[in-house]
Order: sequence, then C-alpha cells, then structure tokens
Amino acid sequence: MKVLVAGGAGFIGSHLIDALLKEGNEVVCIDNFFIGTKKNIEHLEGEERFRFYEQDLCDLEKVKEIFKKEQFSAVFHLAANSDIQASAANPMIEYQNTYSTTFCLLECMRIYRVKQFFFASTSAVYGEKMGVEVGEDTAVLEPISYYGGCKLGAEGLISSYSYMNDMETLIFRFPNVIGPRLTHGVIFDFVNRLLADPTHLRILGDGTQSKPYLYVTDLIQAIMQLKGSGKKGVSLYNVGVETQTSVTKIADIICEKMGLVGIPYQYTGGRGGWKGDVPKFQYNLEKIHQTGWKATYSSNEAVEKTVEAVLLAVGYKNTR
Amino acid sequence: MKVLVAGGAGFIGSHLIDALLKEGNEVVCIDNFFIGTKKNIEHLEGEERFRFYEQDLCDLEKVKEIFKKEQFSAVFHLAANSDIQASAANPMIEYQNTYSTTFCLLECMRIYRVKQFFFASTSAVYGEKMGVEVGEDTAVLEPISYYGGCKLGAEGLISSYSYMNDMETLIFRFPNVIGPRLTHGVIFDFVNRLLADPTHLRILGDGTQSKPYLYVTDLIQAIMQLKGSGKKGVSLYNVGVETQTSVTKIADIICEKMGLVGIPYQYTGGRGGWKGDVPKFQYNLEKIHQTGWKATYSSNEAVEKTVEAVLLAVGYKNTR
Repeated sequence: MKVLVAGGAGFIGSHLIDALLKEGNEVVCIDNFFIGTKKNIEHLEGEERFRFYEQDLCDLEKVKEIFKKEQFSAVFHLAANSDIQASAANPMIEYQNTYSTTFCLLECMRIYRVKQFFFASTSAVYGEKMGVEVGEDTAVLEPISYYGGCKLGAEGLISSYSYMNDMETLIFRFPNVIGPRLTHGVIFDFVNRLLADPTHLRILGDGTQSKPYLYVTDLIQAIMQLKGSGKKGVSLYNVGVETQTSVTKIADIICEKMGLVGIPYQYTGGRGGWKGDVPKFQYNLEKIHQTGWKATYSSNEAVEKTVEAVLLAVGYKNTR
Repeated sequence: MKVLVAGGAGFIGSHLIDALLKEGNEVVCIDNFFIGTKKNIEHLEGEERFRFYEQDLCDLEKVKEIFKKEQFSAVFHLAANSDIQASAANPMIEYQNTYSTTFCLLECMRIYRVKQFFFASTSAVYGEKMGVEVGEDTAVLEPISYYGGCKLGAEGLISSYSYMNDMETLIFRFPNVIGPRLTHGVIFDFVNRLLADPTHLRILGDGTQSKPYLYVTDLIQAIMQLKGSGKKGVSLYNVGVETQTSVTKIADIICEKMGLVGIPYQYTGGRGGWKGDVPKFQYNLEKIHQTGWKATYSSNEAVEKTVEAVLLAVGYKNTR
C-alpha cells in the first residue's frame, strides 16, 4: 500500500522507510531537512517505490496538495524537533516542528479520509517521575521540557482526531533511541569531544544519569509488528528496553571502542545534563511485551553497537 | 497589582475582571471579540483601573508589544474557543483560539518574566470516563473533542513553561459553567427555541445526559481564593459542584420559569448531544474542597439562577 513517512529523512524515519519498502509498500517521504539529512535517504535514489517531497509540514495548503495527489492509505508521523537542548532556548521550534506539524497532518488526514496513523511520542510526556516505574496509565503527566509539552499536546490532538474521524492510531512513547544515522545526543557528543581532544572528557551532571537506550532496529521491528491492527481509536504503548545505561558507562564504552585508556572524566556536577532533562526513568513495559514484542538488544549492547556505527561513519580507526 | 485577563470580554473572563477590580487590582483585558462581546465589558467604561486591547492573541509580535508596555505581574488566561460544536466542523478554530493563544501568552511571559499564571482548563481533557469519579490523577487522558484535545495540549505547554521558567501556575479544570452573560450551550439554546416556538421543545439525545453545572460566581470565588499562592510549578484542581442536572431537568426548569405548561419534548434519541460531547461525568472534588472552597449553589440552583438571568437579559415576562 502507499504510505507517508513524515520526517522520513531523519534518523528513525529513514530506518522506518527502509523497513516499509522491504515489506513491499510504496513510500512517500516529506521532510524539510530541519534535522533530517539528504544523506539519510541517498541510498534510496533510483528506488521506484520511493518518492520524496522537500516540504515544511506546517504549510497546510502545500501538504494538502500532496495528500490530494498521493492518496495515502497510512501516515507515519516522525517529524519533530528532537533536540531538546535547542528548543530550550527557543520554544517556537517545538511549537512549529513538533505540535503544528501534527496538527497539519491530522487536518489532511481528516480532509482526505486517511484512517491509519502512527505517531512517535516520547517518555518526556511523563515529566520527572522519580522512583516510579512509568506505565501508560501513570498520572499526572507533567512534562518539564518544551519538547515533552508539545508531544503531549500532539497526543491530545491525536486522541480527539482519532475519535472524531474513526481513525486507527498507534502511539509509541519512545525512550532514547540510538543506532546508525544518529545525529545528536550524548553518544554523538562524547565521540566528537574525544575526536577533537582525546586528553580528557567533559561530562554534564555527575554521570549517574541513567536511561534505557533502545536500538533503532528493535524499535522499527515493534512499529512494523503492531501497525495496521485495525483497532479503532488510540492504542498507546511505552516502548523500550528493561535495562539502562549510565552516562559514565557510555563514556567507558566509547573510550574502549576508541582504544583510549585512562582518560580523565571531568564532571560538571549536579543532577542532570541541562534544565528540562529527565535524569532517570524506568518504563513499565508489560503492555508491549504482551504483544509478543521484546527488544533484542540490551541498553548496553545498543550503546556498543551505536558507538561502532558512529565511529565507522566518521572513518575512525582504533589503532590500539 | 497589574494583571492581564486574556479573553476578558468573554462570559467567565468578564466576571473575573469584575472581581479583580473589586479587589483593587489594575486590570488589562485583551480580547478579539471572537466569542467575547463589547456588551460584556461596557459596564467598565470610565473605570480608571481598566484598560482594553482589541487584539488576536495569536499575533505574537503584537502581544509582545503589549507585554513590554504594560509589565504585568500576573496573567489570567481565559481566551479559547468554547463552542465545541463549532470547532467540530473546523478544528482550525481550536488550533488557533485555544492552543496557539496559550503558546503566545506563555512566550510573552517567558520573555518578560511574568511568573504568576492562571489557566482555564476543562473536564474535556479526560474524555469519556463512564462510571469513574474523575480525579486530577485519573489516567489515561483521552479527549474526544478538538476542544479537549487542544486544552490538554495547552496544559502540556504550561507544564513545561512553568518548570523551565519557575512560574507559579494555577490550573482549574472547569466543568460546565453557567450564569449571567452566558452566550451558548443547552440553556441558551432551549430558551431561544422556546422563545421562537413555545409549542414544543426539540432535545438532542435522550435527555438523560447529566452534568454538574457550576454557577459562575462560585467559580470566580475559587479563582480569587486560590490565586497567588506563591507555589512554584503547576497546581492543578478539578473545580465543580457535587450535584448534577439532566438535560430533561434543565428543560423542566426553563418551562417553569417561562410559565409554559405541558410543552411536549421531542427527543432526537441517542447517547449524547453531538459527536465529541461527553454525555455524563462526575468529578472527584476532594482536592479543591481541602482548600476550604466549596460551591455555594447546587447544580439545579445554578441552572435556575441562570435561566432567570437569561430571561431577564432578553426582557422576557412570565405572564402566568
């Protein structure tokens, strides 16, 4: 069938396109290259079942034209600002790229009667829930970043559009997702700092911030498995991995993969990396595990594989 | 102190302005007369401590200018589309008037460092929770109207802005609020239908839809009592009344007040008034009752007083 991947030139979106094409679908991608890159989709050049539009999703009239022309059967919405630090300085980035993109896509789905929808939400909608194993029904939702605030807003919109228009919606609340084509985040930062100056490593916070890191292929497998269930309304799942990795452990893995020994870590101290960052959280994953899906890679394994991919991408050679 | 009432020419906003002026504050009102009316604030003409701007709150640059000039100490945000039926046909109304107004106000508060915030949210954020006494921590939030969806989105934004900017925020989730200056809703509709044709009354649904109706002066009392607590972050309260009134009971009260006897009710049948309407709900009000506030009027009393006010406003004389 013909599907739209919004934000398909991004890290996760581009992996999803690969999987959807492999399954035999015709895939249309809309991306404005705000965070997505041409490099992420250059391997699709010449693929007959793939078509690309460089388009800002906030331009409702332009997006309507694409919907009218293409007649999608399903929409996968992965377009968002994913750089929480960037929007902390300028919340307009989230209003436009995370919330308004969702509104415009839902409007087009309403008008052109597209019923199947997938939305990439986030653990950030919960806010800071210290010591709580966060389930889908954990309340109250108190996002502390503009990113989390706008994703919660998008979920609210989706709930009402799904009800009012008899849509079949799948929402995953993503944890930190990592893997090849990663563009930012702690792994990316550490590798770049050590490439620039391998004599020491500056680490935000006290290094004990600990999160579950999910490998991107595991996430894509979950989307492919649970999409198209035909269930009316919103099906909401936390998706993740039961294990976690601390920031210091990430530094250790990177140093090991780069062959750097005895690098001094300089901690800035404090509870988290930056304001709006949730330093620790743990998902309750019962609901998604009941579907039969479970992550293949542990959090540490996901970090290891990602570090290898990032080093390969920059052509780094471990000479030790 | 100098405060902003956004949406102050509306039904509830204009009552709040009256209370804030009575308390001795300087009050600035911004309204675009989308739903608000000049009539609601005409009694304030000549009041020295009152100033009015006719301005769409979605125009960020214009609203910034007002914030820069006025230097508010607190913002009361009651600007929204409140006509759920209208936005069911055109969700853009909610995106602009309910969500984007909130974003623009929060941006201005961030830039001009205004810390005290009040937000009018709604029971519609919960969606349909049949048989559940809905508390502030009831999950999952699944709004079924675009109005509820955008109000939930606004709450998400507010949570993140409050955390990131050390704001002191009070959020009330309103039930149906009624009283003088009411502009739409079931009471308004029934009175108008009977004025036009007193031989019968058409009622959407089966008439058993039952909701708590809160009298506007009770709501205003709650806002005045709980504002300015100085508590950082978001303080969230359901506000309402423990009793309820069915749609048929509302029709009975109106007929009685109009002196109409034996009017046949013609029910359209079905579960609710329209798609996106939540036919029944009941709040758990423990949290707000613990603050010492409690509604003075029961739901039936609120309906009676409102019908009297609406009939007075149209100059209706009960000749029986």
